[in-house]
Amino acid sequence: MISSLITGINGFVGKHLCEFLKNKGHVVSGLDIQKKSEISDITYFAADICDGDAVSNIIEKIKPDEIYHLAAISFPKEANISPRRALKINIMGTVSVIDAMRRFCPGSKFLFVGSAKEYGTIQKEIFTEEDIPSPSDFYGASKYSSELICRQYFMLYDLDVRFTRSFNHTGPGQSSNFVCSDWARQVAMAECGKGPSQISVGNLDVEIDFLDVRDVVNAYWHIMEKGQKGRIYNVCSGKTQKLCDILDFFVEKSTKNIKVIRDKNKIAAIKENKALRGDNTRLCTETGWTINYPLEKTLKDLYDYWIDKIRSGFI
Amino acid sequence: MISSLITGINGFVGKHLCEFLKNKGHVVSGLDIQKKSEISDITYFAADICDGDAVSNIIEKIKPDEIYHLAAISFPKEANISPRRALKINIMGTVSVIDAMRRFCPGSKFLFVGSAKEYGTIQKEIFTEEDIPSPSDFYGASKYSSELICRQYFMLYDLDVRFTRSFNHTGPGQSSNFVCSDWARQVAMAECGKGPSQISVGNLDVEIDFLDVRDVVNAYWHIMEKGQKGRIYNVCSGKTQKLCDILDFFVEKSTKNIKVIRDKNKIAAIKENKALRGDNTRLCTETGWTINYPLEKTLKDLYDYWIDKIRSGFI
Repeated sequence: MISSLITGINGFVGKHLCEFLKNKGHVVSGLDIQKKSEISDITYFAADICDGDAVSNIIEKIKPDEIYHLAAISFPKEANISPRRALKINIMGTVSVIDAMRRFCPGSKFLFVGSAKEYGTIQKEIFTEEDIPSPSDFYGASKYSSELICRQYFMLYDLDVRFTRSFNHTGPGQSSNFVCSDWARQVAMAECGKGPSQISVGNLDVEIDFLDVRDVVNAYWHIMEKGQKGRIYNVCSGKTQKLCDILDFFVEKSTKNIKVIRDKNKIAAIKENKALRGDNTRLCTETGWTINYPLEKTLKDLYDYWIDKIRSGFI
Repeated sequence: MISSLITGINGFVGKHLCEFLKNKGHVVSGLDIQKKSEISDITYFAADICDGDAVSNIIEKIKPDEIYHLAAISFPKEANISPRRALKINIMGTVSVIDAMRRFCPGSKFLFVGSAKEYGTIQKEIFTEEDIPSPSDFYGASKYSSELICRQYFMLYDLDVRFTRSFNHTGPGQSSNFVCSDWARQVAMAECGKGPSQISVGNLDVEIDFLDVRDVVNAYWHIMEKGQKGRIYNVCSGKTQKLCDILDFFVEKSTKNIKVIRDKNKIAAIKENKALRGDNTRLCTETGWTINYPLEKTLKDLYDYWIDKIRSGFI
């Protein structure tokens, strides 16, 4: 049985990945900052990812066959507000984990989860893995720096490191910091009579490459199983979605008459990605990964997630 | 009077820069890890560059007009042996300083000292600032990551950050970790009867772009005085020197019959830079900087430095 360690397991992607790997028969361990995890059937370790000694002790103890390194500040706006904290967690957190793997289980596999935000200022219709990053915010810089560092571990220590540049993803469980989940939540609140019959939105003149989080974790597994070491994989749908179409979906979902309100702060937060689209050819052809969740299914499940959460009294 | 803070002031370049700035009439403060500094006429602060709070307190107190950020692990081999430590000092140390500047003196100038090692795997006759880095060791990755991060502070917070990619430099006071100083020391030891009449050398089939450290600190001052914010400057001679010619210089300097011995470990340490040469056109034309120290003068002063140090009983 394969022993997998997921860092940041309590996060949105971590929970879905854990579920996925357990279904594949993996023995899953998880590491995160919270004292406890709500996930069952795992060995859970609470540690600060930046605490090199604590992370070393955990990896020395479990010596996993593979490490999915998800722990990070993943909300770009948060990184821009507190750059020192985000850079420390995203860069030195990565170093804590991969350096411990070098010392205690150098034969293991390591998945570094990077971001489309690494591409930054590049002006292109569609991004491939050959495009050399040019980050334009602290989040993108933290992810590209970490990618460069992990690449040295691959080149100089011959560690089996695989890289993603993950584009936007959404689905049930996502924080409402992110656009689809924010909108789904607002409409669900209105539907349940817990909020006004309105939705506050940012710039709608944007097209984004979205994947369902369940397709994303499936991609991560495919990269670990069938990908190549030292290689970068775009994790994306290859298509862009107009944000206004996603808005229409949620508005139509509701039985209420939802009023759309523009919020200037939200506009500023996403205006630079006018059309962010990735090429997933490498991921599909080299690993056999395919998309299982059409966007309509994703958005429906996301909406239902918020409806359930509100009705069960969590909000 | 201009108030200048030098981080890493106790280091090889820091001492020379301090001397240079004092001669220009600047009021110099210094920050380094050692409890005390042997440099006189400065305000000295002892702090770990990675201790964000300590660094913040110092910068809040002195609010310098300009910061020359030299503090780093500067010996590439050391970074490859202890990557976690080097990445922390070089990246998070830089973040400590620039983030404190953002908070307490956002109108100041910041010089980020990068490295030719950022260019890494690029195969070219001569490197210009337009070449996109592709580091091939931890030192180069740490410097390029820090450059990318400092660039975000320039772009998102409009801080006045200037960048160097500094090529090899040498001169009196350099650690014998570095090739010219290592050779000068060995020959000086032989000359003074404190070591065998031999010199242990690595790969001689290498050409390196060397500057005198005094020309380097003059370049840093020129960049701060006459350069542009947000801009990268190669700091280099524009010419390469054959290592075998430098070896001949030292061997001929000695009155002893010096035997040359090849050391495989030293060969491995430098073999990747077969010919590392930078284009200094931007530095010369935009700032008016010129070279004052021909290599013969540099090597002679370096040799005399070791002779003095040995004769005065420091070794």
